[in-house]
Amino acid sequence: MENELLFRQAEARDLDKIVKMLADDPLGKTRENYRHPLPKQYIKAFEAIQSDPNNELMVAVLEGDIIGVLQITFTPYITHQGGWRATIEGVRTDESVRGKGIGTKMITWAIERAKTRNCHLVQLTTDKSRTDALRFYENLGFKATHEGLKLKFNRC
Amino acid sequence: MENELLFRQAEARDLDKIVKMLADDPLGKTRENYRHPLPKQYIKAFEAIQSDPNNELMVAVLEGDIIGVLQITFTPYITHQGGWRATIEGVRTDESVRGKGIGTKMITWAIERAKTRNCHLVQLTTDKSRTDALRFYENLGFKATHEGLKLKFNRC
Repeated sequence: MENELLFRQAEARDLDKIVKMLADDPLGKTRENYRHPLPKQYIKAFEAIQSDPNNELMVAVLEGDIIGVLQITFTPYITHQGGWRATIEGVRTDESVRGKGIGTKMITWAIERAKTRNCHLVQLTTDKSRTDALRFYENLGFKATHEGLKLKFNRC
Repeated sequence: MENELLFRQAEARDLDKIVKMLADDPLGKTRENYRHPLPKQYIKAFEAIQSDPNNELMVAVLEGDIIGVLQITFTPYITHQGGWRATIEGVRTDESVRGKGIGTKMITWAIERAKTRNCHLVQLTTDKSRTDALRFYENLGFKATHEGLKLKFNRC
């Protein structure tokens, strides 16, 4: 019998593993700060997400272990005749399960979640250096029709 | 004395002009539905934005007339050490004022607003067919480091 992959909202006890996964990545390792105890700003961000009905931090669970994470933000816009959009961000799977189709199941799940929330599209941006990720999303039906622009602020 | 450009949160009475501006655009005209009375879904989206502390629909006002609109969404993320981001969307100026630097003032204003909300970056996506818009944002310091991917659902 195949082991079942479960999806649920992240809980406070999952945060350590979530940050660990986010940091275990070529770009993530340059910008995250995974240590014990977890820096307070991770906990504050988690609480902000949890208290916002338009943000969901989802984890994928296999045999009791957190093996994937993603965040979905639901946003009402005036454009597209007052259409809601879902934005996916912070997608990561545990390195132990990479190449096993877990990412596909996670994004497919997120797409269904977006439909349930009455969104008319799902969007995301991916760093142009992540060429595998671009191919992955295009295979799932996403179209790279837009430029994704960022303006970063200098912070201490 | 130069006429002063003011920025404020949109009010219900501004919605007609906002939708009119959004529809007056090569892409907007294919997807908006500007008519009287305004379709209900615009009003519902406006109410959803107004009731969400993490969404702001801003208008630029010159001599009492609405001449620009943009929406900013503030989102807490676990990534980037629990950093908040500002996302700009639905930027439009009235055709009567185009080429007069109003867009630059609007985006500059939005960047300052994002800093006030303690964001570590401002992001947006722009359709690859809008080559002028890409240049405009790059001149303001944005970097096109990401692919912007969309997956649209078929709706009736």
